[in-house]
Amino acid sequence: MDDREYMSVALDHAKQGAGKVNPNPMVGAVIVRDGRIIATGHHDHFGGWHAERAALEAAKRDGVDVRGATIYVTLEPCCHQGKQPPCSQTLIDAGIGRVVIGSADPNPLVSGKGVRQLRDAGIEVVEGVLRDECDALNEIFMHYIVSHNPFVLLKYAMTLDGRIATRTGASRWITGEQARRRVHEDRGRFASILVGVGTVIADDPRLTCRLDDREDGGHDPIRIVCDSRLRTPLGAAVVRTAHDVPTIIATCVPWSDDAAKPYTDAGCEVLTIDADDEGHVDIAALTSALGARGVDSVMIEGGAGIAWAALRARVVTKVDAYVAPKIFGGADAPAPVGGVGVATPDACFRLTNTTVTSLGDDLLIEGGVDYVHRNS
Amino acid sequence: MDDREYMSVALDHAKQGAGKVNPNPMVGAVIVRDGRIIATGHHDHFGGWHAERAALEAAKRDGVDVRGATIYVTLEPCCHQGKQPPCSQTLIDAGIGRVVIGSADPNPLVSGKGVRQLRDAGIEVVEGVLRDECDALNEIFMHYIVSHNPFVLLKYAMTLDGRIATRTGASRWITGEQARRRVHEDRGRFASILVGVGTVIADDPRLTCRLDDREDGGHDPIRIVCDSRLRTPLGAAVVRTAHDVPTIIATCVPWSDDAAKPYTDAGCEVLTIDADDEGHVDIAALTSALGARGVDSVMIEGGAGIAWAALRARVVTKVDAYVAPKIFGGADAPAPVGGVGVATPDACFRLTNTTVTSLGDDLLIEGGVDYVHRNS
Repeated sequence: MDDREYMSVALDHAKQGAGKVNPNPMVGAVIVRDGRIIATGHHDHFGGWHAERAALEAAKRDGVDVRGATIYVTLEPCCHQGKQPPCSQTLIDAGIGRVVIGSADPNPLVSGKGVRQLRDAGIEVVEGVLRDECDALNEIFMHYIVSHNPFVLLKYAMTLDGRIATRTGASRWITGEQARRRVHEDRGRFASILVGVGTVIADDPRLTCRLDDREDGGHDPIRIVCDSRLRTPLGAAVVRTAHDVPTIIATCVPWSDDAAKPYTDAGCEVLTIDADDEGHVDIAALTSALGARGVDSVMIEGGAGIAWAALRARVVTKVDAYVAPKIFGGADAPAPVGGVGVATPDACFRLTNTTVTSLGDDLLIEGGVDYVHRNS
Repeated sequence: MDDREYMSVALDHAKQGAGKVNPNPMVGAVIVRDGRIIATGHHDHFGGWHAERAALEAAKRDGVDVRGATIYVTLEPCCHQGKQPPCSQTLIDAGIGRVVIGSADPNPLVSGKGVRQLRDAGIEVVEGVLRDECDALNEIFMHYIVSHNPFVLLKYAMTLDGRIATRTGASRWITGEQARRRVHEDRGRFASILVGVGTVIADDPRLTCRLDDREDGGHDPIRIVCDSRLRTPLGAAVVRTAHDVPTIIATCVPWSDDAAKPYTDAGCEVLTIDADDEGHVDIAALTSALGARGVDSVMIEGGAGIAWAALRARVVTKVDAYVAPKIFGGADAPAPVGGVGVATPDACFRLTNTTVTSLGDDLLIEGGVDYVHRNS
């Protein structure tokens, strides 16, 4: 196995922290000597050991000597005292001989410092191995650490004629199993999930992460209902399960305690946000408030009005459009992005770096949103 | 070069008949001796030489001896007397030594007969070389020869949120140059192009084939306007140019000569078709009438009402959806397929054998329509 292959193993370990480490990055580490993996580790949950430390502890537990060995780590080792001691010093103290790194630390204050410290201690350092894959794994962390705003994913599933439901509102199911599984994987790695109250009323979704092959089903994101006028039904699944899964009702009118009490009694938090110029919850103010309390990621799952409001507010980082090879038709069947819409084709929201992935019969089209060239 | 490579050259020659040979197939032929191409030919226009004959005539003109040579031909040589003498006999008479064939003749009455005749004459025959590519080139012919109904392509260009125009109706342009060029190439190979009168009123399109690199711009399809109540403006581009490019106004009410006269004077044909149960032109009756007069292919280019009517009537053979990585939004922005639409997801129209092609920034998603498994 070469450096890239060991890094790939480290990436697999990193993914085990999905949904549990936010707003920290997912990181994996693999220690190798004489062509054999002698220890592995990953950052498992927020506040837990960093991946390097976890791998070193695993080696110690197994009585394995790591002096002179190579460690593969998906992200540049930290060099500052945080919740955990600095990893660069830990690696030096452990006598590691060579460090192979995937992503550079995106934090401009510390990027490169960990590498320098290691080299100053005489350790060989290789940077940028599988960097793109390592960066992609932590797209959320990379965005949040720099902008302090959540990474916002606008996700929708539509037919090839652009419908998210039939004319009767029926939408189960548009995509097949593979696509739906991928959505649940995303729910598992996102800190929160946002829907409009219309979606709650129409579909009564649970918005939990349900992965068959995970004992706990996967990590449940915080559920946020954008509900300007507090219309969420008390019998809605998200309210009834709010004691088990954190649920926020975001509204933009200061409610009396009496009005909010049934929701708070059920375990929901009622969060009052400024109104936008249309009298709805200001999406930018909402995501900003979420970012301030450490929510590093938001997945928008419907409906069309919220999708438009989020684009107009320029908070959408990325779009995931699942496209099923089906046609519903229907002049009144709903489309994924509603609101007022743009007036001219040039004023559209453009996607950048789009990729296409086949998921069973369906396609997933992904792209970042380019707000800069919007009116070019 | 091997058999596949020579067949690929024959395919390139075949394409030169695009739009001019309908309802005949496009066919190309290449004669090879000692690893050198000594003659080429293609079926150039309806009523003209078949490809085999064209290649043999080219050899004769150049004084090249074809006895014992190999001929590559994209479609099984015909064995019956039609507008032209049977090609199998022509090849035997010319002393060709080996025949390499792409597609089998789809006509069940003659399929395999040409091959048998060649073999009976002691000629070596190889079948099925680049068969998929050769079949795809003549998807129109293959469909028409068996069903006697036109091959109907539903084509639309939409944004990633399923819009064919902004809320103001503006649609120029949704896709980029490569995608628009491909549409013009399709116009060049289709016998006819169908739009609703609403599209004529809204966009006033010319619906001609305009390929920059072709001296004549390419073959113009017959333009058909589906216009139940004869509302096509007399000043519309399609009417004003009807003396140059054949134009049919399809209506479903028997008009007085007075009402139809301005259109016929302008060069249009006014064609009266049965009405469907909603009082519009019956699309199935229209395509059937077109098939009966030798129109082997129809490309539907808009709008949403016609698209739905054609799907509901089960006449759409294939869908070409061009998807641009842009978002328009707008609850009132139009989508590609309108009408009533299906009530439940299971009642959708499913596409089969879908393929995805990148065309610049845009995607082309193609698929056949599976009417059989519609309600499964």
